[in-house]
Amino acid sequence: VRKPVIGVMGPGAGATASDLKNATQLGKQIAEKGWILLSGGRAEGVMNAVNQGAKAANGLTVGIIPTNDNDGTSEFVDVAIITDMGSARNNINVLSSDVVIACGMGSGTASEIALALKAKKQVILLTDDLEAKIFFKKLGGNNVLLAESVEESISAAEKLLKSVR
Amino acid sequence: VRKPVIGVMGPGAGATASDLKNATQLGKQIAEKGWILLSGGRAEGVMNAVNQGAKAANGLTVGIIPTNDNDGTSEFVDVAIITDMGSARNNINVLSSDVVIACGMGSGTASEIALALKAKKQVILLTDDLEAKIFFKKLGGNNVLLAESVEESISAAEKLLKSVR
Amino acid sequence: VRKPVIGVMGPGAGATASDLKNATQLGKQIAEKGWILLSGGRAEGVMNAVNQGAKAANGLTVGIIPTNDNDGTSEFVDVAIITDMGSARNNINVLSSDVVIACGMGSGTASEIALALKAKKQVILLTDDLEAKIFFKKLGGNNVLLAESVEESISAAEKLLKSVR
Amino acid sequence: VRKPVIGVMGPGAGATASDLKNATQLGKQIAEKGWILLSGGRAEGVMNAVNQGAKAANGLTVGIIPTNDNDGTSEFVDVAIITDMGSARNNINVLSSDVVIACGMGSGTASEIALALKAKKQVILLTDDLEAKIFFKKLGGNNVLLAESVEESISAAEKLLKSVR
Repeated sequence: VRKPVIGVMGPGAGATASDLKNATQLGKQIAEKGWILLSGGRAEGVMNAVNQGAKAANGLTVGIIPTNDNDGTSEFVDVAIITDMGSARNNINVLSSDVVIACGMGSGTASEIALALKAKKQVILLTDDLEAKIFFKKLGGNNVLLAESVEESISAAEKLLKSVR
Repeated sequence: VRKPVIGVMGPGAGATASDLKNATQLGKQIAEKGWILLSGGRAEGVMNAVNQGAKAANGLTVGIIPTNDNDGTSEFVDVAIITDMGSARNNINVLSSDVVIACGMGSGTASEIALALKAKKQVILLTDDLEAKIFFKKLGGNNVLLAESVEESISAAEKLLKSVR
Repeated sequence: VRKPVIGVMGPGAGATASDLKNATQLGKQIAEKGWILLSGGRAEGVMNAVNQGAKAANGLTVGIIPTNDNDGTSEFVDVAIITDMGSARNNINVLSSDVVIACGMGSGTASEIALALKAKKQVILLTDDLEAKIFFKKLGGNNVLLAESVEESISAAEKLLKSVR
Repeated sequence: VRKPVIGVMGPGAGATASDLKNATQLGKQIAEKGWILLSGGRAEGVMNAVNQGAKAANGLTVGIIPTNDNDGTSEFVDVAIITDMGSARNNINVLSSDVVIACGMGSGTASEIALALKAKKQVILLTDDLEAKIFFKKLGGNNVLLAESVEESISAAEKLLKSVR
């Protein structure tokens, strides 16, 4: 049986210090659980931090890359999937994840949350963007879980995995 | 020179009566301006209504289809682009549009607004979903315009076309 | 009812003088039949020539663009679909066409023929590449038609349209 | 540094007994080299056999899945990338591989070879389809290597990896 895949979605250049700290911890704890980490795979922001955290705990990391080569890929990605399809790869990010965690907020991240909800996936939001929480909770109902911390996110992911697999 | 392309994005089965009325009028007025209408192309909700409106005014209609055939394509679509890529086609919808109008709200529509903002496109929101307006205005800043009516949407599109082309 | 869509696939920079001449004539005759022309849409080689031919006869031309803007789009394309997905757009080219005509040969064109056959589409080959004809005829059987001229290609397309629509 | 990724492309239902035997051996030897195996990931033909071979030697296996779920995914795939983009995922297959080995022949496989050549990737052909060898050698020149056995394929891959990484 395949290991669970947890997708962590979050901004690149626009990530806050808090997002980066959360992402590093998310990556670490995902790896410690024995789950596979999937992300947008680029060498910046939440994408880089979450992969770095997972590798620090010897996790397996998969990056879904928007460009046509690895020039912008995080050094902490083990398996780089080269899509050359720009933001359309965001749909692959969420479809390939058993559970999606949004860490931080931005237009790319918002598209991933919306695409996840469109695909009837459950999404855990870890962000201090209040307007995002209100909007996506209204949009997704029970498929959106609001987490206040990394620990709550991991705990929610663990519960969701039992229902989706 | 190519004619302007206006993308109208909106829900399928989840469209409200008000969304459908707006979509029909948007399609009609887009056609009357001589613009090309682009949409998700399916035979339901806003997609069907906007194409029907445009054809009633002899417009040219383009549908970007998520499936691998035309079984679910609106009869009011002139040019059907068969992508077989599900919701990943939402990115094509916005990239191919000079201006994007969101008519109504849902997870697919939300993904299109977010993808448009990611691509630095300008988006006109025509919806009574207050939480969506607040969130996307915060997310997109000046690239998001809030319209209160079909007329305001068309007028805003006309102004934006002057800046993007 | 939607008008028939004829996809003409052929090389860009690698097109021969004969390919370009054939492409121009194909575009012209497709337009004269009242069919919609679909192509890869770029401003070079067979793509440019076939669109130029179609516009000379007042046809409607659709280009499926691999990049994220219109910088490389043929001026003879009426409707530009911006995919930003590189060669993965080749699958959209063939799925969106009722009949596929390959005019000339190259790696992109070969991928389109193969993708068309994978999708059980019928393909007309107009090329003097003997090895290509032998290989694809073996691969596709009755779904591959070998044409010796533009006229034969158009005549074959006309027959195929009756069976697929 | 990321481990090398070897893409093995080959037919599903149309695979011959010889293709399946070769695929199983390819998977085994790829795993023994410490390389990552990438394939189309489905539970049939060359895709299933190559993954089974790799897992028998404790390799890491990645499958790029055309559908929107894992219902048709080989049980021997460790990491399943769910694309929901049908044959357009063939381009991801080749872009994500450092070296591509075609094992057997069919329309999907032919599209992958052509897409690899379009992307300037090097392709090793392991097939007894003479017409395919002649055509692709003409099309791809030095980027196409003809192998007569699994051992020759692995040896060629080893040499190519030194040049591409």
